[in-house]
Amino acid sequence: MSMQYDYDLIVLGGGSGGLAAAFRAAQHGCRVAMLEPGELGGTCVNVGCVPKKAMWLAADLSGRIGLAAALGFDVPTRAALDWKELVVHRQAYIANIHASYLKRLNENGVVRVPRKGRLVDAHTVECSDGIRISGAHILIATGAHPQRPDIPGAELGKVSDDFFHLCSAPGQVAIVGGGYIAVELAGLLQALGSRVTLLVRGDRLLERFDAELTAQLAENLCHQGVKVHFNYRLRELRRDGDAVVAYGHDGPSDGHFDEVFFATGRRGNSAGLGLEALGIEVGDKGEVEVDEWQTTAVPSVHAVGDIAGKVGLTPVAIAAARKLMDRLFGGQPHAKMDYENVASVVFSHPALGAVGLSEEEARARFDDVRVYRSNFRPMLQALANGSQRSLFKLVCAGPEERVVGVHLLGEGADEILQGFAVAVKMGATKSCFDDTVAIHPTSAEEVVLMR
Amino acid sequence: MSMQYDYDLIVLGGGSGGLAAAFRAAQHGCRVAMLEPGELGGTCVNVGCVPKKAMWLAADLSGRIGLAAALGFDVPTRAALDWKELVVHRQAYIANIHASYLKRLNENGVVRVPRKGRLVDAHTVECSDGIRISGAHILIATGAHPQRPDIPGAELGKVSDDFFHLCSAPGQVAIVGGGYIAVELAGLLQALGSRVTLLVRGDRLLERFDAELTAQLAENLCHQGVKVHFNYRLRELRRDGDAVVAYGHDGPSDGHFDEVFFATGRRGNSAGLGLEALGIEVGDKGEVEVDEWQTTAVPSVHAVGDIAGKVGLTPVAIAAARKLMDRLFGGQPHAKMDYENVASVVFSHPALGAVGLSEEEARARFDDVRVYRSNFRPMLQALANGSQRSLFKLVCAGPEERVVGVHLLGEGADEILQGFAVAVKMGATKSCFDDTVAIHPTSAEEVVLMR
Repeated sequence: MSMQYDYDLIVLGGGSGGLAAAFRAAQHGCRVAMLEPGELGGTCVNVGCVPKKAMWLAADLSGRIGLAAALGFDVPTRAALDWKELVVHRQAYIANIHASYLKRLNENGVVRVPRKGRLVDAHTVECSDGIRISGAHILIATGAHPQRPDIPGAELGKVSDDFFHLCSAPGQVAIVGGGYIAVELAGLLQALGSRVTLLVRGDRLLERFDAELTAQLAENLCHQGVKVHFNYRLRELRRDGDAVVAYGHDGPSDGHFDEVFFATGRRGNSAGLGLEALGIEVGDKGEVEVDEWQTTAVPSVHAVGDIAGKVGLTPVAIAAARKLMDRLFGGQPHAKMDYENVASVVFSHPALGAVGLSEEEARARFDDVRVYRSNFRPMLQALANGSQRSLFKLVCAGPEERVVGVHLLGEGADEILQGFAVAVKMGATKSCFDDTVAIHPTSAEEVVLMR
Repeated sequence: MSMQYDYDLIVLGGGSGGLAAAFRAAQHGCRVAMLEPGELGGTCVNVGCVPKKAMWLAADLSGRIGLAAALGFDVPTRAALDWKELVVHRQAYIANIHASYLKRLNENGVVRVPRKGRLVDAHTVECSDGIRISGAHILIATGAHPQRPDIPGAELGKVSDDFFHLCSAPGQVAIVGGGYIAVELAGLLQALGSRVTLLVRGDRLLERFDAELTAQLAENLCHQGVKVHFNYRLRELRRDGDAVVAYGHDGPSDGHFDEVFFATGRRGNSAGLGLEALGIEVGDKGEVEVDEWQTTAVPSVHAVGDIAGKVGLTPVAIAAARKLMDRLFGGQPHAKMDYENVASVVFSHPALGAVGLSEEEARARFDDVRVYRSNFRPMLQALANGSQRSLFKLVCAGPEERVVGVHLLGEGADEILQGFAVAVKMGATKSCFDDTVAIHPTSAEEVVLMR
């Protein structure tokens, strides 16, 4: 470890990536300082994955209570929810995570500096109080924030962060966007009592996922009562009494809403970091340009997580941070994050999970693509005369039918996918799936039973 | 196909194995006759996997309603269930499966003979009405039935088949046994309103599963209110008014029960098939002795499924039947069932799943065993201040840390396991798990995050 600097590592940001880096560097014996720790856990823990999943679990319970009523349990088909009580439980859970991170930071001797930082040279960060600290390496892990579109009345709309301040279900809600945050918010709010309208700029949802499954997901949303408008270009928001009115590109008004949420993209938190002056490029969306080693044009300055602009997923930020620390401080000069075959799940109702290539991507890349499908009604739905079906799809390429994509829309998809992601990462062929005996009766067995 | 016989294949039994064989043989162009079709789908569909899973799903809903109440939903902590209504839904689901099998049998031209059959030579079966039919091959797929122990008053006890005739939860129930049927019945009945006592002959549950997880499972049962007595040797049952009294080996009486269920093993349905006269060996438990090709000492006579006495799981019966048909009629002379790394799930609350070797088995087989564990509270439990934890365990062997066992006890284990079973079958090492990015927040991610 270099003693010419105050620290071996200065981390900017206390989100998942920054924390993972700090813990791993400390394991490697580094002196670590963390600036701008903010609410520990960053977006994921405070206004992202964790509270979102908590609300999703509640929405899922609400659906299951309805199924239980259909099967003979003495419960209402649609049970009332004391939303405040749910929020209390959710925030207690988050507080536990904060406490656990704080404990680990202390155990690892990580110095926290609750100040904004600005890079003044390749090894020096100036804190907002004027104090300068130096580090052998600097890691930018400041995350990203939701963006509003540049239209009149945009300030009347809220963003996903604000969703987590709600203490009751708004009546009429518009959600602007077609990405995973829009889809997740729509499903949650509809299930927990709102009437949701989804305003989508393009002609489909979730452009990076398989089109067949996202079409089914759009149908599911409609079936749940969400109104989905495709090819909708929001022109303006205006206030009308307590309501917000959305004006689309081709009509005078498209509805009065109690709340309008923008889920129209996120922007990296790179402003004010002094990057440009050091010759570090910042992209259109505020993202810091890094190479495959997570390193900027300045060899001692690195970035991971949402600000690094690659795959905006918590586990990716964590994995990239750990690999980087292993490379810088752990004697593993070749350690780097592999961005191939990263699995992800959209917490819709039911969930949508995917790893690898969509059918469209596979057909663009390979001549010889074969697709297998299973479209079925899971047992619980069938028992309760529910209409929700599952659609599972395997995309295989080449004469050996290598499995290049696994796409699961259906109950349990969130939990089913992980193991198949290991198999895909290992280079599984269709015959590896065929040769594995099914586990009966499950939804997961459908993945190995497609013929 | 041989024309010297009435049929290319005679199948005895209409369970999962028999049906799979009939469908696959028909696909290969065979003339197929099925004797003793019985209730199509056999044990699995009628008194096994399917109705069991239906009841498990109901029990699971009951638990989730309790969690929902804790989180702020206006539902009772313990909701009443109209058991009859549940049974109506369950039986309707089963009727649909029957109808679907019947349709496929008709489409495939499979002749059904609703008679018992007895083998009179290597190619001839005599039906109970005296008519003889001949086949190039004969497949015995007659399944197994639950066994009562040989003790006084055994006739006062019921077996798992009888469980599915219940139309309400008995008050006090004793279940005799420590295998998966005993564990599943205990969990179901306790969750759906009974007070269950589990009387186990040995000193642990589920002897073929990892001892650490089965110990946790026993604790979970106790926590759910099930009384578990290990080292209990049932001596006698006696009637006392409406109650059945169980007498153990070392005391006068161990409780009055409304129902006593035996889950004390199953016996192959081989009696009266005329096997011994043909020189086909029948084992202690009525199982037909077959080689690794599913073939008996008589080259034209084969057996699959529970009667073949290997792994008593529906998907194994189906896979073995298909491989056998591919070998006999599909031009695949080397096709055979691989009994290595067959995954299975016990539908306890939460479920227990395993593929590969337990820690004990691995330590007996390899010098160099390393075990990884994750013991955590799933998010829904944590949110609702529930106490149920998950215990996941990887057993790795050799310097390359090949994953030889995956053991999952916890919510979602039933669905999580399948993909990991593919990876294990492919020969995954621990590093394959490590290199796969986690899906957050899920329970499944814990399997790739163990360090």
